[in-house]
Amino acid sequence: MADAVPVLVVTTGEPAGIGPELTLQLALAERLPGRVVAVGDPHLLEERAERLGLDVSLVVLEPGKPVPKARSGVLPVWPVALRAPSRPGELAVANAAYVLETLDVAVEACRTQQAAAMITAPLHKGVILDAGHAGFRGHTEYLRDACGVDEVVMMLATDSALHAGQPGWRGGTALRVALATTHLPLREVADAITAPSLERILRIMQADLRRWFGVATPRIAVCGLNPHAGEGGHLGREEIEVIEPCLERLRGEGFLLDGPLPADTLFTPRHLREADAVLAMYHDQGLPVLKYAGFGRAANITLGLPFVRTSVDHGTALDLAGRGLADPGSLRVAVALAAEMAGRASVAS
Amino acid sequence: MADAVPVLVVTTGEPAGIGPELTLQLALAERLPGRVVAVGDPHLLEERAERLGLDVSLVVLEPGKPVPKARSGVLPVWPVALRAPSRPGELAVANAAYVLETLDVAVEACRTQQAAAMITAPLHKGVILDAGHAGFRGHTEYLRDACGVDEVVMMLATDSALHAGQPGWRGGTALRVALATTHLPLREVADAITAPSLERILRIMQADLRRWFGVATPRIAVCGLNPHAGEGGHLGREEIEVIEPCLERLRGEGFLLDGPLPADTLFTPRHLREADAVLAMYHDQGLPVLKYAGFGRAANITLGLPFVRTSVDHGTALDLAGRGLADPGSLRVAVALAAEMAGRASVAS
Repeated sequence: MADAVPVLVVTTGEPAGIGPELTLQLALAERLPGRVVAVGDPHLLEERAERLGLDVSLVVLEPGKPVPKARSGVLPVWPVALRAPSRPGELAVANAAYVLETLDVAVEACRTQQAAAMITAPLHKGVILDAGHAGFRGHTEYLRDACGVDEVVMMLATDSALHAGQPGWRGGTALRVALATTHLPLREVADAITAPSLERILRIMQADLRRWFGVATPRIAVCGLNPHAGEGGHLGREEIEVIEPCLERLRGEGFLLDGPLPADTLFTPRHLREADAVLAMYHDQGLPVLKYAGFGRAANITLGLPFVRTSVDHGTALDLAGRGLADPGSLRVAVALAAEMAGRASVAS
Repeated sequence: MADAVPVLVVTTGEPAGIGPELTLQLALAERLPGRVVAVGDPHLLEERAERLGLDVSLVVLEPGKPVPKARSGVLPVWPVALRAPSRPGELAVANAAYVLETLDVAVEACRTQQAAAMITAPLHKGVILDAGHAGFRGHTEYLRDACGVDEVVMMLATDSALHAGQPGWRGGTALRVALATTHLPLREVADAITAPSLERILRIMQADLRRWFGVATPRIAVCGLNPHAGEGGHLGREEIEVIEPCLERLRGEGFLLDGPLPADTLFTPRHLREADAVLAMYHDQGLPVLKYAGFGRAANITLGLPFVRTSVDHGTALDLAGRGLADPGSLRVAVALAAEMAGRASVAS
């Protein structure tokens, strides 16, 4: 669907969290980069709009009806019904099924090319586990399974506008950090870094940086696992035995890979300005820098899916829900980024 | 020694590295925050000054002679003789003993209060190991042993001027990140985090933030070990079993401790503006952010010693040595910070 004005489907997430109000705030934007449609319960959205005094009119769309052009103050909705009433800050196990249904609607729309990208507001993992979905690990893994792919890669990116004119950065280039492992206890990380897994991840990064970010041959800077990237084997041997041989093999195929580099060297201007993306070996090696650099102006991207998916970089913030205090910055970045990515994909296809 | 103009002793480090030229560049500063004296080989320093066209006159001081007031273009030197000729970029095992002797001279000066603080240019660990000092782990541990203390804490800090006026920061407050573990392979980190060790580290941080940074009761933000600080035990139990009980015990004594917090939440303005310092659990959890935030404008501080010691945050840069390309920013910050810290200590004493 090489549509000039892409349809962007936003799942409103956990109904007791800040997702519904962030989506309403989004609809108040003067200019949106696509035809945004929300997936959620229209009554819930109406109630939140009223509670917060947000002047947003909902347009509930029948299945198959086209999504109208974006207009400030108007929010088209693909309706999904809450299973139980929802109050801000109060989780209800019955609504886990509602949250998952909003995802299924969005996935179906993307797979059938009714939508060009999906953007997800936060869900609450605990309540979905409590509802009996024992293996549930989060959006990313749910979407992977829903799409029937073997591996996806979690990458966070800052808003490219954030760095414009900043010294040491190529003008307007975002910081992009992908993770080789995600939500693992620290003591399990070293064993989870294997050459086959790194190779799959780097292939996905290369393919999707090309497809969605328009970088013909992306240059990827790869962190070592150990401090000082192992310091020649004195501080761990995974760089020598696992990471370096894998990078060398891929370089032989034409991949542009720097590293393995010490993480505290890599995240400095000299290396970042050469890189289209960074691959960190684990969560807390890469994300603290990303969040520090782009707090409130960053989004999460899933690479490896058959369609564009971005997400906010924060949680449900139950304590802020219903109070109009939540910052819509990350959702705006996630929507803008999804639109850019979808635009590039449609040009390429 | 409550001297109004403190003596600051700078060890010039590995002679084949950038330490000698950085020290010479320092002596060209218009204004120095103390009476700086270098420890090193005067002939080496003269040769480097000539090679790089740096207009610096050396004043070789006899033992016991007072260090003169700082003057731009003049570098007082406490002489230590090279063991072998040194050329930029070429390590010589014989000079390992020279490097260690410069440290011994500085330690002795600080212990006898001839100097108020020591600042170290980088040394090369490999060449010291090759010279037969098998247990050598770095400056920090060498100084710990030389001073006969059981434990020291490595803390990095950005130049406070760097953050002045930055949104989300208290004006002029530096980012300070201490490490609970330092140079360990990642797979050994989890077992190295113990309650007794965390308690000793937090006591040293509290004492030295008071003594040297003038913070009566410092507020310390503590990272979790695991991603999301273990997410209530789902991603590791060290927060529940080790970290939280230790923090709780110290809170009972009046310590102001936030955490354990997810590292990628902690390093955002909301938490940083409340904190006088951060305690990261390991090297690559804390230092990438610090280096990103303060590249070239950060210094390393050793807490727990009987005197002030700061250091550059970079290595010997053998590839840059003798070429005048090295950035003296970190050495300047290290000297400025040492002078501030020594000034506060002398007021307090």
